[in-house]
Amino acid sequence: MTEFQPVAWVNGKVRYLDQRKLPAAVTHVETDDERVIADAIRSLAIRGAPLIGIAAAYGVTLAAKKARDENPATIPSVINRTIALLSGTRPTAVNLFWALERMQNVFAASSKSSVDDILDALIREAQSIHEEDEAMCRRIGELGASLLPNAVCVLTHCNTGRLATGGNGTAQSVISRAWEQHKLKHVYIDETRPLLQGARLTAWELQQLGIPSTLITDNTAAFLMQRGLVNAVVVGADRIVANGDVANKVGTYGLAVLAKYHEIPFYVAAPTSTFDAKTKSGKSIPIEQRSADEVTMLNGVRLAPEGVEVYSPAFDITPHELISAIVTEKGVHTAPFEVSLKQSKESA
Amino acid sequence: MTEFQPVAWVNGKVRYLDQRKLPAAVTHVETDDERVIADAIRSLAIRGAPLIGIAAAYGVTLAAKKARDENPATIPSVINRTIALLSGTRPTAVNLFWALERMQNVFAASSKSSVDDILDALIREAQSIHEEDEAMCRRIGELGASLLPNAVCVLTHCNTGRLATGGNGTAQSVISRAWEQHKLKHVYIDETRPLLQGARLTAWELQQLGIPSTLITDNTAAFLMQRGLVNAVVVGADRIVANGDVANKVGTYGLAVLAKYHEIPFYVAAPTSTFDAKTKSGKSIPIEQRSADEVTMLNGVRLAPEGVEVYSPAFDITPHELISAIVTEKGVHTAPFEVSLKQSKESA
Repeated sequence: MTEFQPVAWVNGKVRYLDQRKLPAAVTHVETDDERVIADAIRSLAIRGAPLIGIAAAYGVTLAAKKARDENPATIPSVINRTIALLSGTRPTAVNLFWALERMQNVFAASSKSSVDDILDALIREAQSIHEEDEAMCRRIGELGASLLPNAVCVLTHCNTGRLATGGNGTAQSVISRAWEQHKLKHVYIDETRPLLQGARLTAWELQQLGIPSTLITDNTAAFLMQRGLVNAVVVGADRIVANGDVANKVGTYGLAVLAKYHEIPFYVAAPTSTFDAKTKSGKSIPIEQRSADEVTMLNGVRLAPEGVEVYSPAFDITPHELISAIVTEKGVHTAPFEVSLKQSKESA
Repeated sequence: MTEFQPVAWVNGKVRYLDQRKLPAAVTHVETDDERVIADAIRSLAIRGAPLIGIAAAYGVTLAAKKARDENPATIPSVINRTIALLSGTRPTAVNLFWALERMQNVFAASSKSSVDDILDALIREAQSIHEEDEAMCRRIGELGASLLPNAVCVLTHCNTGRLATGGNGTAQSVISRAWEQHKLKHVYIDETRPLLQGARLTAWELQQLGIPSTLITDNTAAFLMQRGLVNAVVVGADRIVANGDVANKVGTYGLAVLAKYHEIPFYVAAPTSTFDAKTKSGKSIPIEQRSADEVTMLNGVRLAPEGVEVYSPAFDITPHELISAIVTEKGVHTAPFEVSLKQSKESA
């Protein structure tokens, strides 16, 4: 099993995998420049909410290190400027702001220390963010895998793996843990139009990990279920609201309906950081619309006539009644989700 | 409403629209050479089961015409050779063999006539095949549209329109008839991976016809239904067996399950020529597997890692219990389909 690292702190620099070039090429970039990190996040060379937060934390560290070496007096202003720069890269990613706030707080707490101590504190915090995410992935994998039967064939959607997190992923951590436990038989991967994260990223990851998998077009999932080839659906989540409704990559809701019809368990695996206790139900979640070009063009080639109207929501809402369980690093939540999720949030 | 002609008999030649170039370019080819027609069918420049049959019939006529002008004594051998050539273009298309058999029979019946009479008979038969298909499309459209409520929003899959038939299409004839009757509000088009017939062909056709439409990725259909934006699903069929089970483009079965869950009527529109009374249930229909490249590559660009395993069935099976009605040129069939379809077949 090759445990590739999409973002790593190596000898005082950040080394990242340029995900835009996958699956055609595996290209690593090593940098000591926080502006390169900001560009990488903006251009999706580094993507996946948890991974973005980790990369941004390292970005702050890189900037502080350079300032210490060049002009220690500038450290406070450099850190502020870098946090502002990184905050502006992906305006909707919650983990990004959360990680930058942690870096800001550590700096505030250590600002009276020596410059070396400040830097040590920043490096330690960035590494903690990374390690905590890794541990969280491991815990989700452990809890999720315990729900799966032996010789299970799993269907998954989008990318929820190492390329998106600081560890083994969320839904994909469940898959790789089940594989380690010899209870996973096969994974079916939805290609996940329009951006094809399943085809480009998940198929590549599972190849690297040596996990037997098969790629399908999204509209083949129902047929697989009809033929009895899928025993569980495991997906991630972008947001989980108070009643257990889940916002995730478009196509998730359809899979949940299909799973219900075929009496296949449908599991959501995500960290508690995706909980949004303030929103009562999925109906209130705003739906981001993506650009028509993502559907009508691919690599500069036109797939649909010019001027065609396109409806392309980034994600959809799966109502809690279609969800068998929500797996977080804190536990396995089942209906009534409202109660179960609330308890978990309060224990956080 | 622009009524483009994908295949036409114009001044003793065949004029066809090269569908491979859609939607980027609208290119017509005029030919008096049956080998060009064979190549066009083989390379999918001409596609859609009924349209292939029509083009092949014209192809036989072109060959006979050339033989008459060059060496009338060769007409029988030229016709036999041309039928063999055209039969080999798409080995699974039932309409192709059916149309060529009609041409063969007409030639056999007229072979004692003058060469001009033979040619007239062949031209008339090819035109009849074309006109009968046009009338059949019109009838399917009329009967199907009568099932739809006012201000209906229809979801459709793949391409079932003028580009696939000798008239207004099958499922799409229902849509265009409803539009003429001012009862159609909007059409949502599944892009239909992997070959994107919805994006490339149906979106283009509906644009030409001035029918308001919106393109979606296949995995967005469920969300549209959840939001109440779809009032009916109308699809075509590749094969309809004795109990009413339907084989159609992969993704159809998933739409049928989703329609059932959302209590949306699900209609299949197809000519009685797709009936296969000998096969009892959809479980016995063999499923053609398509090449992995169609999923992993697009226009020469790699979308998934090399060596990835792909499952890509060309079509799936929708069991009759999910179908609200099957519309043919002979009538509207509802449950119990076994009885209804049998009666229709016997009256044929």
